[in-house]
Amino acid sequence: MSYRAEAGFELDPSLGRDTMFIADWPLCRVLLTDDARFPWLVLVPRRAGLAELDDLDEDDRTRLMHEIQRAMKTLRRVVACDKLNVGALGNIVRQLHVHVVARHTSDAAWPGPVWGHGAAQHYTPEARDALVARLRSAS
Amino acid sequence: MSYRAEAGFELDPSLGRDTMFIADWPLCRVLLTDDARFPWLVLVPRRAGLAELDDLDEDDRTRLMHEIQRAMKTLRRVVACDKLNVGALGNIVRQLHVHVVARHTSDAAWPGPVWGHGAAQHYTPEARDALVARLRSAS
Repeated sequence: MSYRAEAGFELDPSLGRDTMFIADWPLCRVLLTDDARFPWLVLVPRRAGLAELDDLDEDDRTRLMHEIQRAMKTLRRVVACDKLNVGALGNIVRQLHVHVVARHTSDAAWPGPVWGHGAAQHYTPEARDALVARLRSAS
Repeated sequence: MSYRAEAGFELDPSLGRDTMFIADWPLCRVLLTDDARFPWLVLVPRRAGLAELDDLDEDDRTRLMHEIQRAMKTLRRVVACDKLNVGALGNIVRQLHVHVVARHTSDAAWPGPVWGHGAAQHYTPEARDALVARLRSAS
């Protein structure tokens, strides 16, 4: 990943709020949403000015698909899940980002979507740090 | 698309219900959801036994990403939209399918997700047939 490729990228403050940094993969910044109800990664391509999936060039689209899969595998290694939900919505925060969420049939929103479902329940600092460490080592 | 590649594919009856057939693209069957609140395409890879995005092999993942973009472009040509939402959930219907939904800031669910939002409002037969025709010619 060249410096040039990231020129102008700045994480939208709304995405930085209430998330924890996990890693920078070749294309995306990987964040954990601070909501203990759902193990929930957010992938943010480190490119300036993107809003829609098709704003990515072809190489980056391939990278994004690869990193979505990598996020899915990472979550499966770390948490029990019955289904993975993948979504690019961006109705509230325009900066292109992709949600990869581990779902369980007993979770708070099942079988509905997690987006817009009630208020986040933050992790305790201990649980948050332990999960971040496990996600980092599993990814 | 070989016969072999589609061997065993059968559309889940839940996906066939309340949708209209638009086209078979190289990978996916393309359906229009019969909900006049949201212009809403569903892409179903014509492969047997898939549930998650990473059940697709690498070539098919590339095809899927291409067809998601094609669906986005098709919707933009046919309807006014402020944002496109793309999601692979599958919590209710397990067969792998990807939603591509044209969103408008004045739509019934904005800025929330469309999934699980109230009851569908079916198109009139005339509106449905006109939209299907426009989507087919624009895709």
